[in-house]
Amino acid sequence: MKNTSFLPNIKDNFSDWYNEIISLAKLADYSPVKGCITILPYGYAMWELMQKELDCGIKAMGAMNMAFPLLIPLHLLSKEKEHVAGFAPEIALVTVAGGETLEEPLVIRPTSEVIIHSYFKKWIKSWRDLPIKVNQWCSVIRWEKRPRPFIRTTEFWWQEGHTAHETIEQAKQQVEDAIQLYKKFAEDFLCIPVILGKKPDHERFAGADETWTIEGMMQDGKAVQMGTSHLLSEGFSTSIGIDFQDRGQKISSPSLTSWGVTTRLIGTVIMVHGDQKGLVLPPLIAPIQIAIVPILKSSENPDQINTKIAEIFRFLLKLNFRSKIYDDQSVSPGSRFAKTELQGIPFRIEIGERDLLRGEFTLYNRLNDRKEQIALNFLRDEEAVKDFFSSRIEHFQKKLFQDALFKRDKNIYRFAKFSDFLIESEKNKKNSFFLSRWCCKNEEIFKEHGFTVRCLLSEKASVEIFMRGGVLEEICCIHDNCKENLKIALIAKSY
Amino acid sequence: MKNTSFLPNIKDNFSDWYNEIISLAKLADYSPVKGCITILPYGYAMWELMQKELDCGIKAMGAMNMAFPLLIPLHLLSKEKEHVAGFAPEIALVTVAGGETLEEPLVIRPTSEVIIHSYFKKWIKSWRDLPIKVNQWCSVIRWEKRPRPFIRTTEFWWQEGHTAHETIEQAKQQVEDAIQLYKKFAEDFLCIPVILGKKPDHERFAGADETWTIEGMMQDGKAVQMGTSHLLSEGFSTSIGIDFQDRGQKISSPSLTSWGVTTRLIGTVIMVHGDQKGLVLPPLIAPIQIAIVPILKSSENPDQINTKIAEIFRFLLKLNFRSKIYDDQSVSPGSRFAKTELQGIPFRIEIGERDLLRGEFTLYNRLNDRKEQIALNFLRDEEAVKDFFSSRIEHFQKKLFQDALFKRDKNIYRFAKFSDFLIESEKNKKNSFFLSRWCCKNEEIFKEHGFTVRCLLSEKASVEIFMRGGVLEEICCIHDNCKENLKIALIAKSY
Repeated sequence: MKNTSFLPNIKDNFSDWYNEIISLAKLADYSPVKGCITILPYGYAMWELMQKELDCGIKAMGAMNMAFPLLIPLHLLSKEKEHVAGFAPEIALVTVAGGETLEEPLVIRPTSEVIIHSYFKKWIKSWRDLPIKVNQWCSVIRWEKRPRPFIRTTEFWWQEGHTAHETIEQAKQQVEDAIQLYKKFAEDFLCIPVILGKKPDHERFAGADETWTIEGMMQDGKAVQMGTSHLLSEGFSTSIGIDFQDRGQKISSPSLTSWGVTTRLIGTVIMVHGDQKGLVLPPLIAPIQIAIVPILKSSENPDQINTKIAEIFRFLLKLNFRSKIYDDQSVSPGSRFAKTELQGIPFRIEIGERDLLRGEFTLYNRLNDRKEQIALNFLRDEEAVKDFFSSRIEHFQKKLFQDALFKRDKNIYRFAKFSDFLIESEKNKKNSFFLSRWCCKNEEIFKEHGFTVRCLLSEKASVEIFMRGGVLEEICCIHDNCKENLKIALIAKSY
Repeated sequence: MKNTSFLPNIKDNFSDWYNEIISLAKLADYSPVKGCITILPYGYAMWELMQKELDCGIKAMGAMNMAFPLLIPLHLLSKEKEHVAGFAPEIALVTVAGGETLEEPLVIRPTSEVIIHSYFKKWIKSWRDLPIKVNQWCSVIRWEKRPRPFIRTTEFWWQEGHTAHETIEQAKQQVEDAIQLYKKFAEDFLCIPVILGKKPDHERFAGADETWTIEGMMQDGKAVQMGTSHLLSEGFSTSIGIDFQDRGQKISSPSLTSWGVTTRLIGTVIMVHGDQKGLVLPPLIAPIQIAIVPILKSSENPDQINTKIAEIFRFLLKLNFRSKIYDDQSVSPGSRFAKTELQGIPFRIEIGERDLLRGEFTLYNRLNDRKEQIALNFLRDEEAVKDFFSSRIEHFQKKLFQDALFKRDKNIYRFAKFSDFLIESEKNKKNSFFLSRWCCKNEEIFKEHGFTVRCLLSEKASVEIFMRGGVLEEICCIHDNCKENLKIALIAKSY
């Protein structure tokens, strides 16, 4: 493990810092196929912890896990015209299999709407069969020209939920439930404040009537779309021919939704919380919550310290805290400290000869970089230690979220005129989020300057944001000359 | 849900029974791509329970979960000659991606040895880097000409463990640990007795020096390979160029292993335990352990019964027993009973008006098809109910295993001469397992009669089998004329 000072400067060179921390903390590795990655054990353990929590929430919405096929006949993807047009440039085609050229090429799923809808067609006959809610955890392939580990890769891992409902109102409720699940997860587990809103027309999922998104701000002021939930257009039901006998005995089309989050979330945790020393992981998704480091000097007898360390490890394990001992004697205690900081481990217990003599241990907190001395005897009372670390974890999560929220809100600008916007975005070398009233027209002008409209804020999101950052008194559109149909738009550069 | 008498006769038409129960119990569905399946919620929930248990065992062996890429450059697969020769007829090739024809085709992983070994090459420099143990849960594609749901499908889901070791002894130990984990899982969780042995040369994994297998007997007497563990040949290390500095400062090749079990295990549970009424599921992997069925007659007031049912459901949920209420009033209680039996649910609580008056409920056991009356008051004492169902589950598991073991052992024949073998295999219309001493030559003669050598029994497996079924006193080879290098072979027809 190299010294953490080897990390590029996070303020000046965020992109290099990001790539380097992924490599140094062993989160992911490149693959022989361009744009594909391997997720290494430390990164994958984070994903497993995220999966576990999200899976509970998904099952609580009534969705059941299944496994759908990886390969989709091309004609099936082509049925929904907008959908295929959206995905055509990104698909990978299998043309040879089992030693023969296939009569029809097969698509490796870029997403599973069309294959799952072909099952919906079989399963749905009557309103009694509805709602249907399914989910799958898998990887998908979308050919990526400009990959970035976790954030944008040709293969990525995700969950995709798919539902069918009797009425559009029920479908809309499902779309809302899913995006709220993601918002709560991002904020409570990943400690990342997000802005919830609806994608403008050009940014919608291919074939969707509405796409809802949660947008997080990275440390460099750029936005990342952290989860989406789609109300699908009627095109999906009608092109595949899904219909059912409704309560009034009439033939009707079900309303469909889909929603997902991906391994990109790992990237956002790195980008939002990391610092010059390395990762800072929210304890609830940290593969190791407590590092235990013995400080041994060659002249001393290590037995007593090692015995104590092993005892503490077993004790924490029993209490279900994820712990690891860092006792590699080929590197100094200082290097081992740096390693646990690079890995973003929330807490560290240090014990040296002097600590032992005093009957104390040192507890280091990654969030505020502070140390405190605690009596070793304390580590005997199960209930007390459980309460202690549980409350420390809770506090760590809250504080990490508050810090991220503070940083984000400081970096949200509100403006009424496009000229102000340009001046502001030039003045700030850092990227920012911009909020403005907008008539939903002439989006190109933002794009010319490298920005996109990330989303149109929901009423609730507007209130939330404005309660903290003041109000947008101006009722003008950013384009100055219109005052009708104004929405509040989040405008930002994005990954 | 059709009446279970619609199931084909399990004795006369096992294959149709198998396909029909998969459809009726909603375990899997066919896919638009031949040979691929969709695993439906009830089947997938079984797989999730299997994964949870196996994942603990895999992590306990020190393997860490990761995610490796789906796509492998063709040249990488071609490096290990035996390996590529073994898989060439089964691979699927991506030739077009991102709108362009690829310079080099990409293989959808049929297994991940070569891609994982290319990472081993990067990670392994010194003996200090060893052992490396990784595992991944994913799906793989092997083009299948004669698919059968779960047992043999073009896409299947599995875990694949891959390790690298300093010495061949350590690798052999890992191969042994993995196959013993699978054996214990098959026997303790799936209630399927298995015979552990080494594959004869022709049946080994492509590029392996040794392949260990566990073989289970289905109800029709055919064998299924339920898990394998491979000691890989040096070809893998040398062709990719993995080497390390050993403890003696010399450059050395690591010894490699790989091991896996697949969704085929779902198929074996169906085939070993099912009966004319449907599935019989081991409680530990049953998505629903206890069905709760209210018996309502239209003339009666349902409130009291429904309240009681809901109360029992919540109570069982709290105690972590997986339960479900079957209260669909559009079908009779009898049909609902049949449905829970078709689904193989181990226990069923029935409550009708008369039960309520008596202060009793009926408990049905799927294994022995018996009912008993129990006082309703009993369902108030948490500790007692927990103990009661825990002990019932334990007993169910043991009894199901013992039944399967008894059926299997009754159907294992021991013989010394090939002529006896032929007579025996003609005489029995049912397929059987045959055990014989064998010189490991002239395997073709078995194949001519539709049999294969499933495995050569380990010393321990031989003792286990023979302790129950008598000994093979004969020391002759099945081919009569040789007495040297004799092994004990398991010979059977197989899926």
